[in-house]
Amino acid sequence: MLSQHFLDMTSKKSAIRELFDYGTKRAKEVGYENVFDYSLGNPSVPAPQEFSDAMIDLIKNTDPVALHGYSQSLGIPSVRQAVADSLRSRFGLNYTMDDIFMTVGAAGAIAHAARAVTVPGDEIITFAPFFPEYYYYINETGAVLKVVPADITSFQINFEAFEQMITPKTMAVLINTPNNPSGIVYSTATIDRLAAVLTEKSKEYGHDIYIISDEPYREIVFAGVDAPFVAAHYENTITCYSFSKSLSLPGERIGYIAVNPACKDAAKIVDMCGQISRGIGHNCPPSLIQLAVARVLDLTSDLSVYEANKTILYRELTRIGYEIVEPGGTFYMFPKALEDNAAAFCETAKKHDLLLVPSDSFGVPGHFRISYCVPTEKVERSIPVFEELAREYK
Amino acid sequence: MLSQHFLDMTSKKSAIRELFDYGTKRAKEVGYENVFDYSLGNPSVPAPQEFSDAMIDLIKNTDPVALHGYSQSLGIPSVRQAVADSLRSRFGLNYTMDDIFMTVGAAGAIAHAARAVTVPGDEIITFAPFFPEYYYYINETGAVLKVVPADITSFQINFEAFEQMITPKTMAVLINTPNNPSGIVYSTATIDRLAAVLTEKSKEYGHDIYIISDEPYREIVFAGVDAPFVAAHYENTITCYSFSKSLSLPGERIGYIAVNPACKDAAKIVDMCGQISRGIGHNCPPSLIQLAVARVLDLTSDLSVYEANKTILYRELTRIGYEIVEPGGTFYMFPKALEDNAAAFCETAKKHDLLLVPSDSFGVPGHFRISYCVPTEKVERSIPVFEELAREYK
Repeated sequence: MLSQHFLDMTSKKSAIRELFDYGTKRAKEVGYENVFDYSLGNPSVPAPQEFSDAMIDLIKNTDPVALHGYSQSLGIPSVRQAVADSLRSRFGLNYTMDDIFMTVGAAGAIAHAARAVTVPGDEIITFAPFFPEYYYYINETGAVLKVVPADITSFQINFEAFEQMITPKTMAVLINTPNNPSGIVYSTATIDRLAAVLTEKSKEYGHDIYIISDEPYREIVFAGVDAPFVAAHYENTITCYSFSKSLSLPGERIGYIAVNPACKDAAKIVDMCGQISRGIGHNCPPSLIQLAVARVLDLTSDLSVYEANKTILYRELTRIGYEIVEPGGTFYMFPKALEDNAAAFCETAKKHDLLLVPSDSFGVPGHFRISYCVPTEKVERSIPVFEELAREYK
Repeated sequence: MLSQHFLDMTSKKSAIRELFDYGTKRAKEVGYENVFDYSLGNPSVPAPQEFSDAMIDLIKNTDPVALHGYSQSLGIPSVRQAVADSLRSRFGLNYTMDDIFMTVGAAGAIAHAARAVTVPGDEIITFAPFFPEYYYYINETGAVLKVVPADITSFQINFEAFEQMITPKTMAVLINTPNNPSGIVYSTATIDRLAAVLTEKSKEYGHDIYIISDEPYREIVFAGVDAPFVAAHYENTITCYSFSKSLSLPGERIGYIAVNPACKDAAKIVDMCGQISRGIGHNCPPSLIQLAVARVLDLTSDLSVYEANKTILYRELTRIGYEIVEPGGTFYMFPKALEDNAAAFCETAKKHDLLLVPSDSFGVPGHFRISYCVPTEKVERSIPVFEELAREYK
């Protein structure tokens, strides 16, 4: 018989995905240039030429049997070594290949990390606003995702609420900085305070509490913003990385887990990830893509368009009267909606062919997300539409 | 706290993998040419040039933002369409893209299929000899894998034992033809009898029983062998395919689920697979690899070496006195060991630098697996070693 659990899930489609599908349909009716689609977090700049060159070089100049052969179950050793070397030289922590597990993007990384450090019934805490797919990554393991309400004045961590929610069943906190959907970067003060709470609670509860740090936007940080490397501030950090945004490769599903080498169970956790993989059909990322990414680890796409877009949107929307906590990175912004009901507000915006995602699925009411990974000229042309929308609410 | 379940798994390493590691080490000591490593099922022939050409063409001539963009969660529509078209034209069943879900190899396909058609506590039945990773694919879903003992005279299905083991909790049978490790292809009579039993039991129990058909070796069938397409014989068939062996791409992790279009829940099952993916970090196979494979769906590597190797090994080993059921496909053979204890026999073989996998983990005692995906000259040079080994047992 079909699993009712997964059958029920098929009727709960992603609101973001539905909006994107609407945008594609609408573009066919009124023209692509007339739809201001801020729905999806899909990079708008190309992968660096060096990535394409690496792929072509590998395909042309490697023995195909070796090139397309099975990866070792933790990832290709030379690739794990290259990732460790890059992290070590960039962040000063003493990573070795034993701390690295290659994954199919950050989604795979988070799902593996959660399975490694919980058993069914355990709790993982995250902080609103948060990426709604976390519900699936965590709840499907049998652990329970608990969400700390947002501090909407700063979108840093709401520590009062957090300290009330942490319990002896809390095995990990899942953070995302720079953050989707707010664009906020947690400050050094925030990370240090989080580390202090977790250190104290680990001692009190008699077990380690991990930080699972979801960092796909690590390379998209704007000028002058304090963006601490989380693992450098807390030993038991499992960093979950994806190249989707930094190298504009979201479809190629490549990322890794890096366990802080100072974590006493680092090599054990990596080894466990290999076992978690066995059953669920994750296996390793494709050999070819592992090898190509290893050659461009310290490169990024030209990410400057995101900061240019942020600057225009923040300046103009603030001028018009929208309330916004200024993003420190990513390609997202999370302004307050002009009415309490975010869904109704976004429906009104839709009538102007302005596609905004209501905040409710991110765990915060009354806001909306703008994904400004779109051409700058489109951002500029969208300002009058935001203005028109604001006029409707005056 | 770390999950004891996955921690325990880390100490149960794969015997095949350990043997392979030993072979690599031993080759460094005595020379690669002097180790007869029949341990791993890693294709020994290159991917077709057309695959490399397709990759390079895609990389050079497609907008990188589109090329490396997110795949839809069920797979790229044009790729699903191409797979459906190919299956329809080859096997005459009326597949459409709605019946196809793209996966990271057959492992992902089987794990998804099992999750779709069971709930924890349900049973899936497989038939010895079987690929030992099935334990992980099935048991990690919460369902229970039950193994029907082998018919060692033919390695077709032992129906008497099967009919005693099927119960109202049986939701699927998992078959693998052509078979790893026996190399046997189930005959039309076998498949038809299996279909008849399942049809009768589905009626008796009041629920559908699925065939999950694991078919990575579908294209490696030797001359004159009857190799029925399973889905053509049973409506509720979920075909799990991988391009690993047919295109020699095991590291690139690409395959699909094709649900028989005659199955009333086909589109539902495919849709459920998309939801199953969400949580576990499977996501879709990389966009680039999906697109490249779609261009070479009806090609294979030059697979003739496997039949050449089979012919030599079967003829010579039979002559020496080994008892073997002749393989109909794959690159495996599963002879009887020369003593009851297969592990001890393989240890003795190892002293001759002949690396054979004992049969116990495949669910059959007293046999060994030969993976003859090696150069033919090596097969020829290994015959005197098999002969020497046999002499020790006389």
